[in-house]
This record gives sequence, C-alpha cells and structure tokens, in this order.
Amino acid sequence: MPGPFTLGQIVSRLGGRVAGDPEVRIRQVGALASAGVGCISFFSSRKFAAQLAATRAAAIVVAPQDEAATTLPRIVVERPYVYFARLSQLFNPLTTQPAGVDSSAAVAKTARLGARVSIGPGCVVGEGVSIGDDSCLYPRVVVYAGCTLGVRAIVHSGAVIGADGFGFADDDGRWLKIPQIGGVRIGDNVEIGANTTIDRGTFEDTVIEDGVKLDNLIQVGHNVRIGAHTAIAACAGIAGSADIGSHCTIGGAARIHGHIRIVDRVNVSACTLISRSILKPGTYTGVYPFDENKAWARGAATLRRKGKKNV
Amino acid sequence: MPGPFTLGQIVSRLGGRVAGDPEVRIRQVGALASAGVGCISFFSSRKFAAQLAATRAAAIVVAPQDEAATTLPRIVVERPYVYFARLSQLFNPLTTQPAGVDSSAAVAKTARLGARVSIGPGCVVGEGVSIGDDSCLYPRVVVYAGCTLGVRAIVHSGAVIGADGFGFADDDGRWLKIPQIGGVRIGDNVEIGANTTIDRGTFEDTVIEDGVKLDNLIQVGHNVRIGAHTAIAACAGIAGSADIGSHCTIGGAARIHGHIRIVDRVNVSACTLISRSILKPGTYTGVYPFDENKAWARGAATLRRKGKKNV
Amino acid sequence: MPGPFTLGQIVSRLGGRVAGDPEVRIRQVGALASAGVGCISFFSSRKFAAQLAATRAAAIVVAPQDEAATTLPRIVVERPYVYFARLSQLFNPLTTQPAGVDSSAAVAKTARLGARVSIGPGCVVGEGVSIGDDSCLYPRVVVYAGCTLGVRAIVHSGAVIGADGFGFADDDGRWLKIPQIGGVRIGDNVEIGANTTIDRGTFEDTVIEDGVKLDNLIQVGHNVRIGAHTAIAACAGIAGSADIGSHCTIGGAARIHGHIRIVDRVNVSACTLISRSILKPGTYTGVYPFDENKAWARGAATLRRKGKKNV
Repeated sequence: MPGPFTLGQIVSRLGGRVAGDPEVRIRQVGALASAGVGCISFFSSRKFAAQLAATRAAAIVVAPQDEAATTLPRIVVERPYVYFARLSQLFNPLTTQPAGVDSSAAVAKTARLGARVSIGPGCVVGEGVSIGDDSCLYPRVVVYAGCTLGVRAIVHSGAVIGADGFGFADDDGRWLKIPQIGGVRIGDNVEIGANTTIDRGTFEDTVIEDGVKLDNLIQVGHNVRIGAHTAIAACAGIAGSADIGSHCTIGGAARIHGHIRIVDRVNVSACTLISRSILKPGTYTGVYPFDENKAWARGAATLRRKGKKNV
Repeated sequence: MPGPFTLGQIVSRLGGRVAGDPEVRIRQVGALASAGVGCISFFSSRKFAAQLAATRAAAIVVAPQDEAATTLPRIVVERPYVYFARLSQLFNPLTTQPAGVDSSAAVAKTARLGARVSIGPGCVVGEGVSIGDDSCLYPRVVVYAGCTLGVRAIVHSGAVIGADGFGFADDDGRWLKIPQIGGVRIGDNVEIGANTTIDRGTFEDTVIEDGVKLDNLIQVGHNVRIGAHTAIAACAGIAGSADIGSHCTIGGAARIHGHIRIVDRVNVSACTLISRSILKPGTYTGVYPFDENKAWARGAATLRRKGKKNV
Repeated sequence: MPGPFTLGQIVSRLGGRVAGDPEVRIRQVGALASAGVGCISFFSSRKFAAQLAATRAAAIVVAPQDEAATTLPRIVVERPYVYFARLSQLFNPLTTQPAGVDSSAAVAKTARLGARVSIGPGCVVGEGVSIGDDSCLYPRVVVYAGCTLGVRAIVHSGAVIGADGFGFADDDGRWLKIPQIGGVRIGDNVEIGANTTIDRGTFEDTVIEDGVKLDNLIQVGHNVRIGAHTAIAACAGIAGSADIGSHCTIGGAARIHGHIRIVDRVNVSACTLISRSILKPGTYTGVYPFDENKAWARGAATLRRKGKKNV
C-alpha cells in the first residue's frame, strides 16, 4: 500500500490547493460517514452537510463554492469527485493480483501476452489470443481462441469472452447450428465484470471499443458493437448485432434488442427494453411503476381491458 | 446415505405422532406423485387429494386436521412441510462434497478455514479470507481477498464473492475507476447460488446477514446490506448501496435500485423494479401483464398515447 | 480447416443446383456485406439487394425466385439460409476443442464418458455423471454428481449443471433447506450457453429434452421440463417446476413463473413475464413500451392513478 502522504505532497502530485495545514498526513480515503483516523473524504453536495459536520475524516476535498462548509484541512478543486477518484488511485492499486501467469492457468502456446500482464488461477486463454500490456485477468476468466484484448484490461472472475453466439437456422423444427467464426475484439482500458459473457461474432468480430465499462452478469451477443466510453450496469443484455454508440449509459437489467442502432450519448434507464433504434441522444425509459400489489393489480386489469377492446 | 428408519425411530428423533404401524421402514423421501417403494411423502393441501389417493408412498406426513385423509401409515404434526424438510435432511446430507481442500483449489496461505470446511476443485480463496466451520464451497467458487463467510455457508459453483464494485467518476467522458477497498462480510447459515456475484464495497463492506438465501445468477452490488433471513430468487439484481431489511422475499429477476431502503418483511414480486424506498411491510408489484401479442400491442399503444398527450 | 471446395463439389455433397461456373473455388462462408475473396454468401430477402449488388463474395446461395437477382455464380436451393448453415458446417467444425480430457479437469472415477468426448481445462464432472458420444464441454463447466447429458452436447464455459434447486421451508422465519435429491437429465443435441445454470430437481430430475438450445446466463430452476427443440435466448429465467412444451421460443430476459405449463409452439417475447399457464400456441408479449423519459413518466403517472382509484 502506498502512502501516507501529506496534503502538500498530494497537491504537488495531483494539483489543487490546500486550505489549512498542509502537513496533515493522510493514509487512506474514506466516505464522510465512515472515514477513520488519517482518512481524507470528499464533499460534493449540500445534502451531505450533516455527515460533513460529524465526520472523523482528517481532511476533505471540496469545490471552491464549498470551501467554507468545513473548518477541517481541505483540498480545494473544481471537481471534487473526479479528484477523489485520482486520490483513491494514489493510495490503492487498481488491480490487486501480481503480474505473471498463475501456475494453474491454461494459456495456449500461441497466445500473446503483453508486458506485466496478470493471469490469475484457473484462467483459460485460447489459441491465438492477444492481451495487451498491464492487463489483469482475475481467477477463472475464459478467453476463447482468437479474441483480443487491449492494454490495461481488467477482467473479473467468471467472465467468458468468445463463446459461440446464439445462431441457428430452423430446419423444419430442428435447430441447425451456424458456426460462429468471428472473434471478440476489445479495445484499451476496458473493464469487464464478474460472470459477464461476450459472444464471438458469426462472421466478423464482436467489438468492444476503448474505455467501455461492463458490470457483472451482462450478456453481449454476437456481432454487437459497443462504442467507446459506454458504461453498462449489471444484468443488462445486448442482443445480437445491436450497434451501441459512444458515451452511452445502459442501466441495470436493461435489454437492447438485436439488429438495432443506438446513437452516441443515449442513456437507457434500468430495466428498460429498447425494442427499436434510438437516433436522438437523451434518456429513455420503459418500466411499469411498482405499487402495493392490490393497487398494481387494479392498474394492470385496466390495461388488459384496453388490450381486449375492439377485438 | 443414512437410514432406513422406521416411523417409530423417526418420531423419536424429530417429534410428531405415528398413526398406523410404527414399524414401517422408510428409506427415502419423495413427492406424492412420484414416491417409490419405501418412501415417505407429505400432504399439505386438499388440492393434492387425488395425488394422495394414488400415491405409492409407504407413509405420509399430515397435519392433525388431515389425519383422516389417508389410511396409509402417517406421522401427524402441526406443520407437515417444515417437518418434511427435517425428515429429508435426516435421509440426505445437506452438502455432498467431502471436507478438506481439493488439490486443484488455490487457497492463499493467509486464508483462515474453519473446522470441516470443504473447498471443491478449482476454487480460489484469496488473501486474508476467513471461512467459518462446516462451510462448503462447491467447485469453481472464487472468494476475492479480504472477504469473510460465517459458519455453515453453502456456496454453489461459479459464484464470485468480492469482485470490484462498479464505481467510476466521469472525467470529461472518460471513466475513472474508483478503487473498491471494502470487502464482503457474510454471516452464518448463508446459501449462495450458482454463478451469483456479490461485489466488494467501495470503502466499507458489502454485508449479507445471517440466514440469507440467494438463488442463482443474482447480482449484489457494492455497499449493499441484505438483512437476516431474507431470500432472493434467481436473476434478481440489487444495485449499489441498497439497504434491504430482514425477512424479506425478493422474486426472480426483480431489481432493486441503488441507494434505497427496504424495511423488514417486504415481499417484492418477480420482475418488479423497486425504484424508491419501501417503508411499510407488504407485497409490492410492478409488471406489465402479458397477453397475446396483438392484444398487448393495442394496450401498449394506448399507454404511449397517454405519454404523448399534452406535450 | 476443411476445404476449399468448388461449387460443383459443394452441390454434390449438400444438394442444390449451380448457376454459373461450377469450378469457382470457395474457401469460406461470409456475410454479404463483409465476405472476402473466395467466400460464399447467401441472399434471403430483397431488403439486402444493395448489399448483394456491392458484395465481394465469389458466389451466392439463392432461392429459385431470386436466381436472377445477381449475375455471380450461385447455388440455387429452396431454403437458402438452412443450406447456408450446412455449408458453413462443411467449412467450419461445430466445436473447436480436441477430444479427450484436459489434464486440469477433475472427472470423477465413476463418471461415464462416451466416445470422442472433449472435456476442457478446469471442467469438473461429478460422481456418476454420464456424458454421451461426441459431446464437448468447454473450459470451466461444472456438472454436479448424478447428472446425464446425451450425445453431441455442446456446453459453453462457466455453465453449471446440477447445483441445488432453491427449496426452503419457512420455519418461523428461518429457512430450512430441502435437500435436492433429483438430478438433471439432458437429451441429445443440446447446446448450453456460457454461465447458464440448470438446477437439479428436488425429488425427480430436471429435464431438458432433445435438441433444446439455451443461450448464455439462463437460469433453469429445479423440476423444470423443457420440451424438445425449444430455444431460449440469453438472460431468461425459468422458475421451478415450470413445464415448457416443444418447439417453443423464449425471448431474451423473459421469465416463466414456477408451476405453470406452456404448450408446444408458444413464442414468448423478450422481457415478458409469463405468470400463468399458456394453453394455446401463439405469440405472447408483456413489456412496457419505452419512450423518452418525460413521456414515459406521464404515461406511468396515469397508470398509477388508475391503480389508486376506488381504493
């Protein structure tokens, strides 16, 4: 663990301005409500004023307009939360697994691993796979043959990259498998959550562009493209051949139909099914509002009557 | 496999009263409809009267008010289903994996394993992990560094405990990772289903209290608390910092928003999105009623018109 | 990799009629839009006429009524897409893992493996498991004790077959585990996607019939039956004791309640919750239509007012 650092040392590395004693020593970051001795926290919204008043943190990161909100030693910066993320990275390594290939991992001879790559216990890396510098595969990741990951990838346990896409032809009631001969091509700085699955393409590659962040238990179907810096929350499903733009956010358990297009800077709310293309940036939602069961049942009955009318 | 036992031996161990021949020998439990020779079944509802009449079971567990529903040898108890669960536990071990650490598991030297713990093939147990007595990790479970499990844990294959929570700061369109320095703290008597994921906390621990039962493919986000004896069905998703009370039931594929609170004794229906705090015990639902596709499309069109009105 | 083949060689193996030069040599299949030199593609709908006009494919599979749609060498057949699937199988192996048991797999001594079975790295095959000829388990599949798979199974990484079903009796607020003593019985020609989970039955087996295709991250609960040749898309959940017919399709993230019955030839749309039995073939849907967030909020407010009325 790096540190401790004084406030003065911190601003000389990360920028910002110290208000109060620059010799205060910081050993770790913490939340306002739970920060311990020697911790630094951040204040980003007046609704946390009571927590700020009660905090045991040794110092606070604040925006200029909140500089007077506390008498604790502080670091004043324009965007406290972004600064705080950097500060936490200063005290804590981004990945916690040593570089090198664990003896229980199965890495194909034809795989190419970049510098300082970490392959955890039980990982399986197939023929012809390429993994960029400084990437970390936590235990039990599988990368099927022919897939590529860029630099600084973080892949959590149980993720499966490159299994066959779900492609079948209906042969008089029997399903005839379409071989999936594409791969998966993943850009730089991508993080992939635990037990997430990304299928290989039918002919071409499934593509995950730079800076994409995928949470846990997400399904990415074959031939999908996810644009750069898009973030997708847990349990979402992206069906085959969907084309998702850059700088989008997809909420948890949302689902994107296959063969549709979503432009850049679209936000999809949690649990929403996107069933047609979205060509205009904005926020899109489609969830049934929950209620006490009885009230819900009345609303649902009304809805069903509307469906039955004029049949 | 333990047993066989006579009805008399069973009631001397588990309580209840025999009606009929106490020397009938029972070798296993079974359902009314499929129980084989030497099996004992249970009868808990009049709607299964026809199955009771046709059963090949050798004996039946019944409530006092149903004592006359069959002439088969029976065990009479107040709560037949709970008794039957105990009875099945008498005949069948709760876990089927031998104690000890499989030679293909990777257990960190600093991990502490309680007495009679069973660690299956391919499991990975990180630095500083603690696992209580009589716990069983089925094959290919991963427990990241610093997480703790109480006694009698049952963790099914593919579960991932302690991967990084999904925390990023938006740095002008790039996602800056917030290190996740909390852990996961799991109480006693917890069962975790196959391929379920429980993320470590951002600063503090994600907490799963005693007696919680999680089905398969569930996502538990960082900083979540799940209160004691709450049961969650498969494919549910609990977003970060949600605080769920004790004795709740969460239906399959339900989703709980982040940063909300659910009090004790709340039942959430399957597929329901809980988007705000619930402060009153009860049953809550929010699912679109399904219908033949044409009828649904008419209802949905009505709904969309309402959204467009008065724009 | 097999091939290359001339068009003449292809039709002598798979049927169909060549129009144009039968000596054209084909080395691989491809999509119209991306086919490279020496590739054969297919044309199945007039909406791809522009792609057909621009394709670099060396030959095209077409239906008789589209024979004049291109001047490229073609194979004329009644069902181009089904033919194309066979053609792709001719050029590409259905599974890409060599036969045999990987040295890092843990296969119980009492397991029975058929001829030419392939067990990948990190797989775990329990006591008494039976796996039919020509089956392929990709890396890190777990098959719990007592489960059976038929011939030509394809099981993708991370799938878990035979973990305990989610069965508990409510013992005054504590959950009492019901031992799950059934198994999982899987027919012939079944494909199971990455990280999909299929639970063992409470007393009897969970049953997956011949020709069923399951995508990734699907949950199949205990005691479920899935009829022959049914296909289920990713992230779907089938709750315990559901009985699903043959030749059904279940859309992505759809959810089937427990203890209900769905007859043969039912199509369930993506994201739809089926909460009661379906006794008539057809297509069933129940999803809230998405919209821009503001318009959705207005529609949802209307719906909630209907629920509150007449309380």
